[in-house]
Amino acid sequence: MPRKSAIATEPRCARRAQGVADADPNIAPAELAAAPPQARPRIVIIGGGFGGIACAKALARAAADVTVIDRNNYHLFQPLLYQVATAALSPADIAEPIRKLLRRQRNAEVVMAEVTGIDTAARMVLTGDGARIPYDRLVIATGSVYNYFGHADWERHAPGLKTIDNARAIRTRVLMGFECAEREADPARREALMTSVIIGGGPTGVEMAGSIAELARHALARDFRHIDPREARVVLVEAGPRVLAAFPEALSAYALRRLEKLGVEVRTGEAGEEVTADGVRLPGGFLPANAIVWGAGIRASPAAQWLGVAPDRAGRIPVNARLEVAGHPGIYALGDTVAAPGPTGAPLPGLAQVAKQQGEHLGRELARELRGSGGAPAPFVFRNRGNAAIIGRHAAVFDFGKRRLKGTLAWLLWAVVHVYLLVAFEQRVLVSIQWLWRYVTYQRGARLITNRTDASE
Amino acid sequence: MPRKSAIATEPRCARRAQGVADADPNIAPAELAAAPPQARPRIVIIGGGFGGIACAKALARAAADVTVIDRNNYHLFQPLLYQVATAALSPADIAEPIRKLLRRQRNAEVVMAEVTGIDTAARMVLTGDGARIPYDRLVIATGSVYNYFGHADWERHAPGLKTIDNARAIRTRVLMGFECAEREADPARREALMTSVIIGGGPTGVEMAGSIAELARHALARDFRHIDPREARVVLVEAGPRVLAAFPEALSAYALRRLEKLGVEVRTGEAGEEVTADGVRLPGGFLPANAIVWGAGIRASPAAQWLGVAPDRAGRIPVNARLEVAGHPGIYALGDTVAAPGPTGAPLPGLAQVAKQQGEHLGRELARELRGSGGAPAPFVFRNRGNAAIIGRHAAVFDFGKRRLKGTLAWLLWAVVHVYLLVAFEQRVLVSIQWLWRYVTYQRGARLITNRTDASE
Repeated sequence: MPRKSAIATEPRCARRAQGVADADPNIAPAELAAAPPQARPRIVIIGGGFGGIACAKALARAAADVTVIDRNNYHLFQPLLYQVATAALSPADIAEPIRKLLRRQRNAEVVMAEVTGIDTAARMVLTGDGARIPYDRLVIATGSVYNYFGHADWERHAPGLKTIDNARAIRTRVLMGFECAEREADPARREALMTSVIIGGGPTGVEMAGSIAELARHALARDFRHIDPREARVVLVEAGPRVLAAFPEALSAYALRRLEKLGVEVRTGEAGEEVTADGVRLPGGFLPANAIVWGAGIRASPAAQWLGVAPDRAGRIPVNARLEVAGHPGIYALGDTVAAPGPTGAPLPGLAQVAKQQGEHLGRELARELRGSGGAPAPFVFRNRGNAAIIGRHAAVFDFGKRRLKGTLAWLLWAVVHVYLLVAFEQRVLVSIQWLWRYVTYQRGARLITNRTDASE
Repeated sequence: MPRKSAIATEPRCARRAQGVADADPNIAPAELAAAPPQARPRIVIIGGGFGGIACAKALARAAADVTVIDRNNYHLFQPLLYQVATAALSPADIAEPIRKLLRRQRNAEVVMAEVTGIDTAARMVLTGDGARIPYDRLVIATGSVYNYFGHADWERHAPGLKTIDNARAIRTRVLMGFECAEREADPARREALMTSVIIGGGPTGVEMAGSIAELARHALARDFRHIDPREARVVLVEAGPRVLAAFPEALSAYALRRLEKLGVEVRTGEAGEEVTADGVRLPGGFLPANAIVWGAGIRASPAAQWLGVAPDRAGRIPVNARLEVAGHPGIYALGDTVAAPGPTGAPLPGLAQVAKQQGEHLGRELARELRGSGGAPAPFVFRNRGNAAIIGRHAAVFDFGKRRLKGTLAWLLWAVVHVYLLVAFEQRVLVSIQWLWRYVTYQRGARLITNRTDASE
């Protein structure tokens, strides 16, 4: 196999690598980065999520070198992350190494590094370890993070659900709550240990609330001798007037009915006034709780700052219909981190399917442009494949825009679609069958309490 | 469901439970523990490994209350832990919640707590959280830990392979080594990043060496652009004259040939003189390495100290043929933590099958005794089901005592036996098929780099 010289040493790597020293100070990272001289344009994609991976794959046959940079070594199938948080799936079931996804794409390479900035003048991506990665075209697909609306300190008590570590922390906290309740003599403390509060009634909040309720009522029902997990309290707090606000009212009402049927206490019109280690303060008073999950709002990644462009209220980078950043020719952005104009003029929502379609579109357009097969670049047009939220077994909602679907049929459709997506996701047939099997039989195969240190983060 | 009052509050639980306060100081834990008055004898089993679980299950129909205490909430299928460390399996694939294993056994309860001592006078098990758990009969099945022969500081650089966190730490370290090597410009550092050293040529060391070599040569072969993982160095260091010393010489010789065929450098007659963050000092000089795995020796759990009995050289509790601890009527011990007389008089080896058979035997005998169906308690007789070690694909060795087996046939037998065991292990058919599939196709489905903090432990 022919060798190109590597980009640069990563101090975090050096630490990780058990004492291997940092890069030779006599070699400026830039020199390393500069070698070899670029024979063909290098397209750098920041972020290995749905948008970034779709874009990289669409560039498979482009006359360019493609570099995907991500802080993790894996692509995460985020729509099922809530099932890791509730012990239905293992992290590896929904995470695939980015290298594996791109291993057959010879024009693509993967760099595991944390991006800290962009030198637009020198056309370099800067990483936390001091490396400078040159680009000719740049694609920013850095997604979003949870928004604690100025209460950053709440995060350690109420993790969101964006990362595998988040999911493991929530899983550990929920399961430890039952373990401790089993040994707790005081009834009030026992109730607190068996209480979960989910803040935010969007799809993530609804999925978490339903899934925790089912975990307690089914998977754990017969596991204990001193407590009855079916008495666990799951409280879903939504500041707005209804859950699933992004869906039609009829579907919100259905979701509410199903959640209540699962025993979830839904409190709309109430905002968490304070989140502490002991619970959540609500307008009605303080609610002692063990596990608190944050799903109340997201904010775009800080990419706008890297470019020095003015973000919108949600921190998103404004892009034109071709996903190009105004004033930055050759720099594109997509997915949760951008405000891209939709059909109505309003920005498209932060959905996996939007990011995926944008990535495919941009990759195709860039490849076409590099082929020099003229014509103006086509604007991106979103095709709504249906927006879904799952409440629990036999209960999901689909919004296709004109059409709507709810109940068992919607749930079956959801399950089939996700098995299909999981299978497409590197032919993981058996994982998918297993997931469907576990899921339909209410089993929870991943009820591990590990990384207790993480659990308090 | 009728409630019994819980045993006692666990301060760690209290912490875990996000601020729930500790047990009321006015209630002595003993009082809590004492209530309710024991209607029937309580058999307490410390340890939810192969021996402890087998014993608990054998007591299913006994006229006794059974309490299983473990520091973790899961039983670990340790024989496949090396596959978690080398990204072939997820932790949850080989870990089953103890509560799930015993959920249908109404006379059994599970306590998740760290045992710190035994008050033999008061017949109480003491836990790290100040609880006192009363027993009428006590079964100690606390297994073993790695022995660093007085170099406790080596453990953080060279983890053993006993726990899920060990396995995750090793997996992260091995995978990060390749990630960093991909970005490392200096050839010497790159080689160090791609070097793994396994200390100890027993079954664990041989399995780890073979599995890391296969990970590099197959699963990762095409993942990188600047390095060739097939050039990774795997060094197996064994102080004795041959690997698999517990096996017949012919099988050791075979294992050696197969390891060398996989590209593993086997160094017998060499002991690690020093283990640092940078590598291992050997008689031949210092060997820079990224991942270092310790498999050089084990030592029994500290249970002997709890009882104040004199352990043997390996720290094991001496027990008689009925597994009873001399001078402690009603206290039994089994598995890795005891020296139980074998047929030749020499202590039985620390094997899963020994612990399992001892647990089944002791459970049966205790149940029989409680039934009062007289007769002297029967001594334990070990039936050797065959001792196996796996070197890699199509290469394993079996020692049945008189008979021996090696090569593809042994490997197939090993795979079939383990699928059977995994399936028996709570009917996890799909996990097992998936494992066999991944395994035979050289896939590694769990190549996640997570918990980087743990990785340095």
